[in-house]
Amino acid sequence: MDPLFEFLLRQGDNTLVLGHRISEWCGKAPVLEEDIALANTALDLIGQTQMWLGYAAEVEGAGRTADDLAFLRDAWDFRNLLLLERPNGDFGHTMMRQFLFDAYQIQNLKALEASSDPRIAEIAVKSGKEATYHLDRSRDTVIALGDGTSESNARMQSALDALWPYAGEMFLADEIDQAMAADHIAPLPLEYRAPWEAAVLPALAAAALKVPQDDFAHQGGKTGRRHSEHLGHMLATMQVLQRSYPGATW
Amino acid sequence: MDPLFEFLLRQGDNTLVLGHRISEWCGKAPVLEEDIALANTALDLIGQTQMWLGYAAEVEGAGRTADDLAFLRDAWDFRNLLLLERPNGDFGHTMMRQFLFDAYQIQNLKALEASSDPRIAEIAVKSGKEATYHLDRSRDTVIALGDGTSESNARMQSALDALWPYAGEMFLADEIDQAMAADHIAPLPLEYRAPWEAAVLPALAAAALKVPQDDFAHQGGKTGRRHSEHLGHMLATMQVLQRSYPGATW
Repeated sequence: MDPLFEFLLRQGDNTLVLGHRISEWCGKAPVLEEDIALANTALDLIGQTQMWLGYAAEVEGAGRTADDLAFLRDAWDFRNLLLLERPNGDFGHTMMRQFLFDAYQIQNLKALEASSDPRIAEIAVKSGKEATYHLDRSRDTVIALGDGTSESNARMQSALDALWPYAGEMFLADEIDQAMAADHIAPLPLEYRAPWEAAVLPALAAAALKVPQDDFAHQGGKTGRRHSEHLGHMLATMQVLQRSYPGATW
Repeated sequence: MDPLFEFLLRQGDNTLVLGHRISEWCGKAPVLEEDIALANTALDLIGQTQMWLGYAAEVEGAGRTADDLAFLRDAWDFRNLLLLERPNGDFGHTMMRQFLFDAYQIQNLKALEASSDPRIAEIAVKSGKEATYHLDRSRDTVIALGDGTSESNARMQSALDALWPYAGEMFLADEIDQAMAADHIAPLPLEYRAPWEAAVLPALAAAALKVPQDDFAHQGGKTGRRHSEHLGHMLATMQVLQRSYPGATW
């Protein structure tokens, strides 16, 4: 197992799985402007996926493409954070998941801009602008809905309670992360935690939300060991075309 | 297009699609006894599917099997009633869909016992006992929940309102049905309507439910022309194994 390949899968699967989840909103969001914003966010994330998985495929050197990695792997081969495969729930739930990830991703990309691997640095720079916009938007929405009506506050609190236990996986390190840190390709994820909290906690306070007392119980997505049933169902839909018509192009 | 093949697909796709929908409840029903009853109902329906699609494959004579028909056709090739691909909703919603179909299916199977095609008559006889049990159970549940608390009554009314517009497709005939009637293979579906109403309307009255004023607006499932997005998602999940590992056996 090549640690760099694994690391790139983690980056690419994060943006792929979240991107697909967000795309599920297309045509169904509560108002037109949000529908378009969600579709744009999904497109950004899928575009970033193309770069991450494209580079992963090159590193693997087995003749696979980014599309092969996206559409022909099974759930147990995916390396995304569990948080990102959670079902969309209501609009507020989706935006809470987005915010918790955006506040992490901005740190991740900022750090990767200084990666010793020039391709990774380049992808991080290209993705950074979009990530900044995503974070501005998800934070504003979380605050507006949390600090809104009692109904919207209650929904955002329940989203936070449901998703918070998944947030801790973002800061866990294993031997892949240690190899990346040793080669100055990426810092240990724990380094993102303080700046993440510095971004997240004040926003949740402004949103009149109570941070759950929780020990970040859920993990095992980035290692591929404990994906939920939800990922399998999502992939069945996402991959149906290439699975039914292998090699189809247009 | 062989009318007999099409007719058998309609029979088999009805039991397959409803059977799969019901199987989605496995492990998730409100109480253990209902969970087991639903799983048994799903097994009955899938067993009946084996017979219908097995015979369909023989009639087609193209070397396909019942499994090929179930797992390797696309949504537009399915011939099930639209009612049966509707999402499960809550438990009451599922039982209302079941009841509306069971009351039709019992008439359908009773008529097919006298089919001029001995294989069809045989399948109908084999399926009839289970269908009688399904109808007893779904009718009792609809009455118990409808004539229950104000909450359960409201939920059953909303299920009836949502599903009723799909019921009419059961009684529509096209050139396939006309060919079956001409060959004394099956009567025209319209003949099932009066006995269906005689079974359904008193039960709905006993359930304290109001029959919607509706013209049975939704149709196009049995012709394959207007399947909903829901069927595609369902098939993506149902077919994922054979699509991902073509020809897999165990």
